[in-house]
Amino acid sequence: MRARIYLPFILTLIYVFNAAAQTGHAPPVAPVAATRHNLMPVPASVRFNPGRLPVGKSFSVAVRGQADPRLQAGIDRMLRRIEGRTVMELPRGLAADAASATFVIESAGAGKAVPSVDEDESYTLEVSDRQAALKSATAVGALRGLETFLQLLDGDRDGYFIPSVHIQDRPRFPWRGLLIDVARHYQPMEVLKRNLDAMAAVKLNVLHWHLTEDQGFRIESKKFPRLHTMGSDGKFYTQDEAREIISYARERGIRVVPEFDMPGHATAWLVGHPELGSAPGPYTIERKAGIFEPALDPTREEVYKFLDVFLGEMAALFPDAYLHIGGDENEGKQWDRNARIQAFMKEKGIKDNHALQTYFNKRLLTILKRHGKIMMGWDEIFQPDLPQEVVIHSWRGPAALAEAAKKGYKGVLSAGYYIDLIFPTAQHYAVDPIPAGSTLTAAEAAHVLGGEATMWSEWVSAETIDSRIWPRTAAIAERLWSPRETTDVEDMYRRLDVVSVRLEELGLTHEKNQATLLRRLAGGRDIAPLQTLVSVIEPVKEYRRYRQRPQTMLSPLTGLIDAARPDAGAARRFNAAVEKLLSDAPRFDSHSHQVKTTLAEWMSAAPELEALIDGSPALHEARPLARDLAELGATGLEALSYMSRGVAPSAGWRDARLAALEQIAKPKAALEFPVIASVRQLVVAASEMSRLKQLTPAEWKEQVKTLAAPPAKQPGN
Amino acid sequence: MRARIYLPFILTLIYVFNAAAQTGHAPPVAPVAATRHNLMPVPASVRFNPGRLPVGKSFSVAVRGQADPRLQAGIDRMLRRIEGRTVMELPRGLAADAASATFVIESAGAGKAVPSVDEDESYTLEVSDRQAALKSATAVGALRGLETFLQLLDGDRDGYFIPSVHIQDRPRFPWRGLLIDVARHYQPMEVLKRNLDAMAAVKLNVLHWHLTEDQGFRIESKKFPRLHTMGSDGKFYTQDEAREIISYARERGIRVVPEFDMPGHATAWLVGHPELGSAPGPYTIERKAGIFEPALDPTREEVYKFLDVFLGEMAALFPDAYLHIGGDENEGKQWDRNARIQAFMKEKGIKDNHALQTYFNKRLLTILKRHGKIMMGWDEIFQPDLPQEVVIHSWRGPAALAEAAKKGYKGVLSAGYYIDLIFPTAQHYAVDPIPAGSTLTAAEAAHVLGGEATMWSEWVSAETIDSRIWPRTAAIAERLWSPRETTDVEDMYRRLDVVSVRLEELGLTHEKNQATLLRRLAGGRDIAPLQTLVSVIEPVKEYRRYRQRPQTMLSPLTGLIDAARPDAGAARRFNAAVEKLLSDAPRFDSHSHQVKTTLAEWMSAAPELEALIDGSPALHEARPLARDLAELGATGLEALSYMSRGVAPSAGWRDARLAALEQIAKPKAALEFPVIASVRQLVVAASEMSRLKQLTPAEWKEQVKTLAAPPAKQPGN
Repeated sequence: MRARIYLPFILTLIYVFNAAAQTGHAPPVAPVAATRHNLMPVPASVRFNPGRLPVGKSFSVAVRGQADPRLQAGIDRMLRRIEGRTVMELPRGLAADAASATFVIESAGAGKAVPSVDEDESYTLEVSDRQAALKSATAVGALRGLETFLQLLDGDRDGYFIPSVHIQDRPRFPWRGLLIDVARHYQPMEVLKRNLDAMAAVKLNVLHWHLTEDQGFRIESKKFPRLHTMGSDGKFYTQDEAREIISYARERGIRVVPEFDMPGHATAWLVGHPELGSAPGPYTIERKAGIFEPALDPTREEVYKFLDVFLGEMAALFPDAYLHIGGDENEGKQWDRNARIQAFMKEKGIKDNHALQTYFNKRLLTILKRHGKIMMGWDEIFQPDLPQEVVIHSWRGPAALAEAAKKGYKGVLSAGYYIDLIFPTAQHYAVDPIPAGSTLTAAEAAHVLGGEATMWSEWVSAETIDSRIWPRTAAIAERLWSPRETTDVEDMYRRLDVVSVRLEELGLTHEKNQATLLRRLAGGRDIAPLQTLVSVIEPVKEYRRYRQRPQTMLSPLTGLIDAARPDAGAARRFNAAVEKLLSDAPRFDSHSHQVKTTLAEWMSAAPELEALIDGSPALHEARPLARDLAELGATGLEALSYMSRGVAPSAGWRDARLAALEQIAKPKAALEFPVIASVRQLVVAASEMSRLKQLTPAEWKEQVKTLAAPPAKQPGN
Repeated sequence: MRARIYLPFILTLIYVFNAAAQTGHAPPVAPVAATRHNLMPVPASVRFNPGRLPVGKSFSVAVRGQADPRLQAGIDRMLRRIEGRTVMELPRGLAADAASATFVIESAGAGKAVPSVDEDESYTLEVSDRQAALKSATAVGALRGLETFLQLLDGDRDGYFIPSVHIQDRPRFPWRGLLIDVARHYQPMEVLKRNLDAMAAVKLNVLHWHLTEDQGFRIESKKFPRLHTMGSDGKFYTQDEAREIISYARERGIRVVPEFDMPGHATAWLVGHPELGSAPGPYTIERKAGIFEPALDPTREEVYKFLDVFLGEMAALFPDAYLHIGGDENEGKQWDRNARIQAFMKEKGIKDNHALQTYFNKRLLTILKRHGKIMMGWDEIFQPDLPQEVVIHSWRGPAALAEAAKKGYKGVLSAGYYIDLIFPTAQHYAVDPIPAGSTLTAAEAAHVLGGEATMWSEWVSAETIDSRIWPRTAAIAERLWSPRETTDVEDMYRRLDVVSVRLEELGLTHEKNQATLLRRLAGGRDIAPLQTLVSVIEPVKEYRRYRQRPQTMLSPLTGLIDAARPDAGAARRFNAAVEKLLSDAPRFDSHSHQVKTTLAEWMSAAPELEALIDGSPALHEARPLARDLAELGATGLEALSYMSRGVAPSAGWRDARLAALEQIAKPKAALEFPVIASVRQLVVAASEMSRLKQLTPAEWKEQVKTLAAPPAKQPGN
């Protein structure tokens, strides 16, 4: 489900608003941490004790009971990661004597041959200053525990250690996924593999593999080879490669749910098989982003025969119990124009396109059942007479999910987890599949299986995709695994910074590729000023990039917007510092050095940026941003100067500054500064110094924030 | 040939000395550049003209005459790289009309089916402000020209462009290789592929694939599967993968010469086939670095039968005309102790181990001839009655090569190109396979085929290997391609910085992985102080790492030494600035701000470094380096302070500072500061201020440098 770019985003906005409001009300309960830790997702129960287990060169692991090869491989990977972090060579192989081993692992069973939504992922981890002990019912549970163990590894002057702790852990939801759209931009095998490693590190357990789209058909079909040979520009996964991914995922306790999107989003199918379409064709692979007309013809028996063979082939290839048929965003325009389809509808009494799609889905359901698969599809497939094993994948939100759950349908939430839209992590973190105050009974709530972050790939290449997924998806993983009360945003961001670096040890490129992209843009010159700029800009949110900087699926993804990342770290730190500064009225001492240094850095980067831009035509689009950056710095410093001198600026100054900030707030090159609100606050604070005598500091700060709030935005701006 | 770590390095040092002396004498001739350019290797002939060819969104390529698929693929890769740099989407496919195309390519022939040492790689490139035209005899020549074209791409306020230029180019040597040792540390397929891309970018044309060693047997043998299954820890290339690499290389005009090292360096062979050994075994995969005893038994017919089958299999797998049999560093200790081998030698009148190895080589030669291959081996295989088609691969040096050439033998130079030894690039750059003053006749000189950089892999992982190879190997590539007179070191380093960034667009990780390694070491804390440190340290040179920081092949390669790189850039810039400062006597104004800022940075980084080190046990070994860094900074600033005040320090101060610098010069954690000589010079300069009145500034500087020269080093220190 590619979110509906032609619909207003009212539904999405409602969630975001609700979710944010909810976070605002809920006290930031830290259900676990007496000790500050770096665990993400936070376990169901954690109790730290005094003491520590040293991790030294003799660190050894023993397995009690069954030693599933998958568990052994997981232990081996853990050892290599400990070695990588500690730069110590550890003994190879398992220790024979559990009593004297540093770490004893006991998994009662190997777990299911094919990873399942019913897999028992629970574990307990008990660390004393003598030994660590991990116990689980399945190898998958043990793998989850190994990741927790790795997250506990810490060091100080005395060496590496694991703090003494007692952890009892199990996931809140059994379905915790990441959708990767490999259709709009094909992603090489190593991208999928390193993302599976990262998923395992944060205890995600479903790779939703979005394999077909208007822009590409990415899986080899031996039955209908024209599908992938003509629909993919040669960029597809062979069946051997698909098996390799499935096996790699299984090794990490991750399911692979394939999606074959139909009847819409199907242009690439029709390039090689125009006879399946609802208009005669010919068809070419779609290069643009958006919603397109081509759709399978639901009225022709040949289409079902074709799908029966194709889905049979795919059902045999993908062992997971579920198969996703998409079903989203079919607007039926081809159907409307096809006289034969119209006649068919009239004859069968099918009243509209939605009903026709329902007819199609029912036929698909029969086919999938025959091939032993449970059907899953986006919200649109939900219909009253659907059998209850069908899973609804919701882009509409928790309310739609709850409604379905009350009727006995299972569901998975993706609304609120659209990580391609560059929203702040905090916003995703606030979205709960079963929000506090839900009226679902326990039995109904059990139908809400979990959620999936969705990495739609219109604007990501192999070089940039990690930077859109990570580290943010770790926060969604926490939402889906940890107790509902785990909602402290500041602590989430603190831990996310640690997770981010640890993901790099698995080969993830979200951190390191930014400098590479900037170096390419700078053509070998010093990138420091460019780093200053990119640290405080973010790509525009939602679907604004489509309009503000049009590109096709063939365009290079190497611009400044591609180097810029969500959750610009320096911007977040600046905003926090301004908040602290304003809270320190009337002294304005707290964090003032940090705020001034940052503002001065923006000013001084600007001339160097201009020189860089001159030499790099690819950066010409960034010229207004360089000027905006200088102006933000100058404005902030002026405001601080008024404040420190206790001199009120003129109303004219304030109005001119606020007007200038409104211009700066307009995105350029589809990039925006998430620090503008803070600079506005500084301007207003300087102008409102005189009121400090009449108000308490807290009242004053509230007033400043209210006055500094920007004029209401037009929707879809 | 793993250089002989137990021999003194006298031979190597002699080259280095000669080469350096030669560079010192030769005036830095810039044979081509009226205009400063970024070409590397420098073409045989370049003439820039006024004007430029704009590169815009309508950039189009046409092919005249034959359009080899390899050339078409090369054009496609070029277009994607232009897109990546310019962030412009260019038209897909070839233009139909050559007259109006931006870039017209005409290759007379496709080139050889199997890339050959006789391949014609010449091309001409003519760029006017209307069109660029590339002409070549073969597709390979055209590929070389495309890389030149990419290196010419430049930009300014008016957009992207290619300067008007006339280039006639051909390589000086036909054999320009990179040896990658995948045996000591296995390297994944993507490492090989990205390095092949990088090789093509700097016009290297031989991947020497060092596949077998004491520490690993890395190629699948279907005839003798125990070789790879028991000798590789499961880390080997399947034959399909080998074919994939060969094809990937061929696509880029690169030959693949496999090496199967024997009779020594053969432990991993013997793990699965102890019967081939000269002692009964059993054998296990070697985990240490060094020279080991296990050797094939040259006296048993079964060994030749085995090798006949194995080499027959490999000869069929690898299409290149040459096959490398190693032949190095067999000390014959197993032979000495084997009574049967001794009896065999007596019976056949074989007088020593060298003669026995000669006997072995002759047998191998017969086998290889039967399988249609030309034998290549390290210096040791050279023997008087060798047929002249055998190629000598020299770790001894140009003199040995010249001697062989005079006798009619072909040779390839690797002495001086051991990039694993972390010497400065300038040192490799100074080594010429046929140095100026060579007495070889033209016919003899033609026997010197070229050279190979050798990436021995004792201390590199997939994460760090690029940082040892690149960008330095581009300078060796230039030595092997460009006219002998291309020797300007400063300009080489300037261009190398540009090449480095451009290699990143091919996925090379030499730049970006350093920050990743530092973040891992810092455990998520700010790495800025660590970056300051690592920017002015280098791993110890030659084989000192072996002794100073012992590790095995199983040890993690994630320490500070692995993050540190050869040619530490900040150190080079600091040294150059000190040189300029001292040349500006008696004002000492030039570059003084840069020198002071750098010194102050070292001082201020130290306390933050200490804090980082406290929290990261893996960095504990760096503690003395942090202190040294602070002391270097303080010492330099003190010296500058004396100089600027015109006050002479006491002799006691000078002696104490120089003594301290001698301590700092001792490597710690196998890392060293390549800036110590410069700081010594500052100390001496401060002490010698009074002499400035008696000497010319130039005399004074020479005196300072002489006095500042460190005490003579003990060899092998």
